[in-house]
Amino acid sequence: MRRFDSCQARSPLMAGFFVYIGLLSEIVGGAVLINREGIRYRQELAAVAAHRRPADLVLTGGRVVDVFTRSVEEAAVAIYRSRIAAVGRGYEANRTVDLGGRFLVPGLIDGHVHLESSLVTPTEFARLVLPRGTTTVIVDPHEIANVLGLEGVKLFTEAGRTGPLDIFVMAPSSVPATALEISGARLTCGDIGLLLADDRVLGVGEMMNYPGVVASDEELMAIIAAAGSRPVDGHAPGLRGDQLCAYVGAGVRSDHEATDLAEAREKLARGMWLMIREGSTAKSLDELVTLAADPAGRRCLWVTDDRHPADLLHEGHIDHIIRRATSRGLDPLVAIELATINPATCFGLDDRGAIAPGRLADLVVVSDLQEFRVEETYRRGRPVSQLSWPDRAAGTGGARGSINVRWAGVTSLHLPAAGRLARVMEVVPGQIVTGMSLAAPKIIHGRVVPDTDRDLLKLAVVERHRSSGRVGLGLVRGFGLRHGAMASSVAHDSHNIIVVGCSEEDMAAAVEQIIELGGGQVVVANGRILAQLALPIAGLMSDLPAEEVSRQVEELERAAKSLGCLLPKPFMALSFLALPVIPRLKLTDGGLVDVESLSYIPLFVDT
Amino acid sequence: MRRFDSCQARSPLMAGFFVYIGLLSEIVGGAVLINREGIRYRQELAAVAAHRRPADLVLTGGRVVDVFTRSVEEAAVAIYRSRIAAVGRGYEANRTVDLGGRFLVPGLIDGHVHLESSLVTPTEFARLVLPRGTTTVIVDPHEIANVLGLEGVKLFTEAGRTGPLDIFVMAPSSVPATALEISGARLTCGDIGLLLADDRVLGVGEMMNYPGVVASDEELMAIIAAAGSRPVDGHAPGLRGDQLCAYVGAGVRSDHEATDLAEAREKLARGMWLMIREGSTAKSLDELVTLAADPAGRRCLWVTDDRHPADLLHEGHIDHIIRRATSRGLDPLVAIELATINPATCFGLDDRGAIAPGRLADLVVVSDLQEFRVEETYRRGRPVSQLSWPDRAAGTGGARGSINVRWAGVTSLHLPAAGRLARVMEVVPGQIVTGMSLAAPKIIHGRVVPDTDRDLLKLAVVERHRSSGRVGLGLVRGFGLRHGAMASSVAHDSHNIIVVGCSEEDMAAAVEQIIELGGGQVVVANGRILAQLALPIAGLMSDLPAEEVSRQVEELERAAKSLGCLLPKPFMALSFLALPVIPRLKLTDGGLVDVESLSYIPLFVDT
Repeated sequence: MRRFDSCQARSPLMAGFFVYIGLLSEIVGGAVLINREGIRYRQELAAVAAHRRPADLVLTGGRVVDVFTRSVEEAAVAIYRSRIAAVGRGYEANRTVDLGGRFLVPGLIDGHVHLESSLVTPTEFARLVLPRGTTTVIVDPHEIANVLGLEGVKLFTEAGRTGPLDIFVMAPSSVPATALEISGARLTCGDIGLLLADDRVLGVGEMMNYPGVVASDEELMAIIAAAGSRPVDGHAPGLRGDQLCAYVGAGVRSDHEATDLAEAREKLARGMWLMIREGSTAKSLDELVTLAADPAGRRCLWVTDDRHPADLLHEGHIDHIIRRATSRGLDPLVAIELATINPATCFGLDDRGAIAPGRLADLVVVSDLQEFRVEETYRRGRPVSQLSWPDRAAGTGGARGSINVRWAGVTSLHLPAAGRLARVMEVVPGQIVTGMSLAAPKIIHGRVVPDTDRDLLKLAVVERHRSSGRVGLGLVRGFGLRHGAMASSVAHDSHNIIVVGCSEEDMAAAVEQIIELGGGQVVVANGRILAQLALPIAGLMSDLPAEEVSRQVEELERAAKSLGCLLPKPFMALSFLALPVIPRLKLTDGGLVDVESLSYIPLFVDT
Repeated sequence: MRRFDSCQARSPLMAGFFVYIGLLSEIVGGAVLINREGIRYRQELAAVAAHRRPADLVLTGGRVVDVFTRSVEEAAVAIYRSRIAAVGRGYEANRTVDLGGRFLVPGLIDGHVHLESSLVTPTEFARLVLPRGTTTVIVDPHEIANVLGLEGVKLFTEAGRTGPLDIFVMAPSSVPATALEISGARLTCGDIGLLLADDRVLGVGEMMNYPGVVASDEELMAIIAAAGSRPVDGHAPGLRGDQLCAYVGAGVRSDHEATDLAEAREKLARGMWLMIREGSTAKSLDELVTLAADPAGRRCLWVTDDRHPADLLHEGHIDHIIRRATSRGLDPLVAIELATINPATCFGLDDRGAIAPGRLADLVVVSDLQEFRVEETYRRGRPVSQLSWPDRAAGTGGARGSINVRWAGVTSLHLPAAGRLARVMEVVPGQIVTGMSLAAPKIIHGRVVPDTDRDLLKLAVVERHRSSGRVGLGLVRGFGLRHGAMASSVAHDSHNIIVVGCSEEDMAAAVEQIIELGGGQVVVANGRILAQLALPIAGLMSDLPAEEVSRQVEELERAAKSLGCLLPKPFMALSFLALPVIPRLKLTDGGLVDVESLSYIPLFVDT
């Protein structure tokens, strides 16, 4: 039960302890780096640079992009082990690659991404993004932390330590989002302190409860203090003026939620690092791209926040953002800075982000800076095209078996009619906010049932972490299903099972199939499974290749459409209906939630 | 004798220990900051920003310079205790100051200065520079460390901790400069590790032995490793190409010695922070100022390196550099960035360098950005014009009594003629290098004596730290003295007593007077003291007001001139004649040194 206790660190003394833990991690982190690389390594790097010793690899004939002087230089790059020894001429090496006039760019960095949104494992994510030039990602494993707590975060820190991609982690700061639901775990300030002791954890992840920070909430302040001098990411859509000052003054120093120029400029002026977000859902590049060429551009970086598998496959990752930015007229050298030296500086990763002596040999080869089609990526001096990829599911064992439901069958979905007029969640197409309306639902034998003709479908959230048997029930309009049901174990932020349907039997079948799969997404009609995607890893991620995941996601969407669904991304819409921090009416396993008052509210207004 | 042992830290294991010590300091440093400021303080800052609590001070009616967006904003700045709570409007405070349309600029930072060159105490230095807008200086106490070791460095760390100016220290990395002289102390890698454990020590000071670093010298590499992830300053005049790559790859990441644009650009491209130096002697602003407006400008900062008391009094400090830069056509907003956010970023001082919530209320008021005449400085929210200045000599007690000479009188200066043709140091006016020539000195009774007619004066270096009785003797041309002698206990880098003269009796009298003063500079003729400046603090600094020091320096120069001296800054020329790392012929207490071979060389070629 400990994980469900509310945070104990209410005194400055306790907070001081977490600060200590945070600082302790600097030792561990620093020592690991220094032991691994070693004084001797630095000596050897200098020896290679001074031609006293051959390099391991020399890339000749390239045009080297220098992010410090915003210029391009014809030079060779000498690499020794995992680092760049020199940028110059005449280097001898065990191996030489002639780039034939192509450009050499520093490895790309995504400064903020919830990797779980890709629906694939960290290794599979690496297989997708490394060939596209991304060599470092800073993830906020907020989703898996809600399911598995510290164990879930560990999946990413371990992947970062041993996997092919440099994954760093920001300690998720808002787990769970509210007390109005059962999540798989709670991360206390103490847990965050423990996370900060890991050398793969750079700081504290987005402080989503920005009203709480502005209000000087003691627990939130203790979390910020635990970061010590390390970065604390923000999340403050629309926050401006005095409130913004309070948020920044409290210690939060970045934001990725700005969507208009004036807001973005104000956040920069108040000292925030501005993450320009261009992901699968939220897209701010078009609006904010002019900032990049501004003097303020040095405090801007590209981030994706969320990126779906199909988009990673067909569009790309940070390379895609650079292409979009240059197509909007941005100087490619500037676009590259926002993907390299700027995020490196923002996160104090002084060992990367530029092609310079002593830095990691994370490099990208492109023929045209404007087009930015990555032809080869070097990660720590080795071409990723020659990498032998580790097992896609490596390290995910501990994240399986996360679906723990006490399921009583279709009766769990029975909803007694406690009144006549009920509150209905109104889906707003393409948005994650909902509206609220009132309607008299269809009632049969004293029970509320779906009413397909009026698009008044039934919605249920089935608690799936602790076998509590809790089921929240409500009504939703906007899906437009004419038959069947669809269900998902991806349901922000607690990721209980959410199911919507025209028939209680199909809804029950959908829930049962998700239990059977150990997590996933399904579309069911007349008791038959029309499409499904297994997400056995924390109920959030697949162990299949991205191509297969992408295909199954398409099938799910096609199946939903075949049942009459009107929404373009029905599973995304579904996944946000359980998030009680986004207005206006939401459903958790505990019941209907009024977001404004952050409290439960009865389904019937005339109860 | 321990301090004279050579560095023991030759194994990676030992180096690891120093790394540990370095990292330990992160705890101490961080904890001090966090304890002092506290979680509650952050809560209160947010409360002030959100208008829940009055500010201590509000500066209204000002035009706030924003170094992030390179713009000026009409806004009020709300200050709570030592920090900025908000930039906005409508703040209530216990005290309000109307700036009447004047500009508010972040406090200025000098990123690299040897404070000893000002000849005054840290407190007196603070009195000079704070009203000129400097609120933070990063000192490399290389001079006092050569005299007093860790105790000497402590004088600056303590001044930084308790004094009116924010003084940070870079641990001097090259003490002593060579083994060819007796210095007052040696700083081993272990000592540097200990220094790094002090929260006032930011990193490792300039690695002057750049050939040693390029050559992968193990002791130097251990010193760099001791810094861990913290800054290591460089010093590499003219270093370019492969050698520069080796120096940077070894871990050195700044330079203040670049004097031409191509060299500066190359250093920037290799990832170095470029310190543009404009001090009392070395001046590179005119040559390098165009870099500031370049994209590379974000990696540039102004530094003074050395600043004499008269220049501080009459010209200024960083304010003077900003004036010079704008007079050369640089946008004042850019000139300000190189004095504020850039050095703050360079040294990881994220709590300053900008006017933004949560940062220190170090602020400067000017009426005109181009003119940049500082009208008021706020340090941590308090106007420095209202500061009650601490005792000028506070904390300097331990640095007195540093002159320990075993002095046998004028016979110490007797130089037997061991041959006919002697090597002569040739002073090059305005430079610190010397030439070498051969001459047949005047010999009387088998002893070499000064020969005023041929300007072949006698030069002596008297060991003054350990009463060893060692005296080095040589011949110098270029001073042009016709009578008397001049002596100084400021003699780079070991700061033994150096004396030049036309008469052995006057030379002896000058040395005796310096012993009497406990350190200083004197001009003597016919046994009479014509001018003098006592430097009782480590033999390097006065405890007098800067105005008085400046006056006495002028008198010394006038007195030297009255004796026929041809050099404009004779004491500066004198002070570099004992520095055996600057070509070509130098004199230490051990004798004549050939700088090229870094070894002793006989005075007579025909011995």
